[in-house]
Amino acid sequence: MSVIDDLASEFTRLPGIGRKTAYRLTHYLLKIPPEEACRLARAIEAMAERVRRCSICNNLSESDPCEFCTNPTRDRTVICVVEEASDIAAIDGSGGYRGLYHVLGGCLSPLDGIGPEELNVDSLLARLNGEVREVIIATNPSVEGEATATYLHRAIGSRGVQVTRLARGLPVGGDLEYADGVTIAQALSGRRGM
Amino acid sequence: MSVIDDLASEFTRLPGIGRKTAYRLTHYLLKIPPEEACRLARAIEAMAERVRRCSICNNLSESDPCEFCTNPTRDRTVICVVEEASDIAAIDGSGGYRGLYHVLGGCLSPLDGIGPEELNVDSLLARLNGEVREVIIATNPSVEGEATATYLHRAIGSRGVQVTRLARGLPVGGDLEYADGVTIAQALSGRRGM
Repeated sequence: MSVIDDLASEFTRLPGIGRKTAYRLTHYLLKIPPEEACRLARAIEAMAERVRRCSICNNLSESDPCEFCTNPTRDRTVICVVEEASDIAAIDGSGGYRGLYHVLGGCLSPLDGIGPEELNVDSLLARLNGEVREVIIATNPSVEGEATATYLHRAIGSRGVQVTRLARGLPVGGDLEYADGVTIAQALSGRRGM
Repeated sequence: MSVIDDLASEFTRLPGIGRKTAYRLTHYLLKIPPEEACRLARAIEAMAERVRRCSICNNLSESDPCEFCTNPTRDRTVICVVEEASDIAAIDGSGGYRGLYHVLGGCLSPLDGIGPEELNVDSLLARLNGEVREVIIATNPSVEGEATATYLHRAIGSRGVQVTRLARGLPVGGDLEYADGVTIAQALSGRRGM
């Protein structure tokens, strides 16, 4: 197998990249100067070498504790629980949140053999130590995400911490005509006074 | 900028990969063991280091001359002219061709400043040395590809070599109802006796 096929087969292991796209990427890297192609290689190595899990919140970061856990300007009374570290960028980028985070590392999925022991639930409960007043559960609005949220609500239940969930409803910029029935039902039941 | 953002921005430089896909790929590489992520990095480096242009046909290969030019079982009386080295895999994979290749390195495109001098035309003409009896022009069936084919036909014209062009017509497995008018017109004008 040539080094070209070798690289293409490495690319096909990435999510959403099939055989044709893999060869397109490979041939693009062949077209640009070798030193530019090597920049991508070095970026992958630097990341694989330097990024690790934060021992407090399980976020991916170059420092341990991560930049959120050590930032003195963040509101330490509220923790936002997400499934994956990649969700933090989406929530923090919205500009609507200035508290801390906790990464579960997935969601409950009995069919895939993922129970509460496989998720970072114990480390979350260990953080609910008096200073924290609210836990915002920001798991995905999927069946598994809902089940995980319900499980966390019960697990936290008796610790005197308020547990909230992200609002469900119509996405901003969306069109009522094209919204699915479940979303409209959620938007109706969650309606607010103006 | 963190190493994570750094890698994501390297990914966005690849064709067809936007910001969201770049972060999805980055987070996938963070999830798998570091040594597996490094395998992709090493495959890129190996390719950038070892692949070069064949001095005869301009194909990308680890050896110079490339494996087609040195293969004694290939038919040396016919040369198939393609725009890019990536087209060779598609043609050779079809199993319908056992001759040699020549990579132009693009197609004529005056708007992008690509004229005959920017393509490997001179090296093609230098190969038409008596042994070669046919040149198959396999440029893309686009306006630029057609213009390039016409130019090559004229450039080769007086050398006593037969110049042919890949057939245009209905793609196998396609549906007449969904074929565009130009393709149907080409299929009609190129119709063959049964």
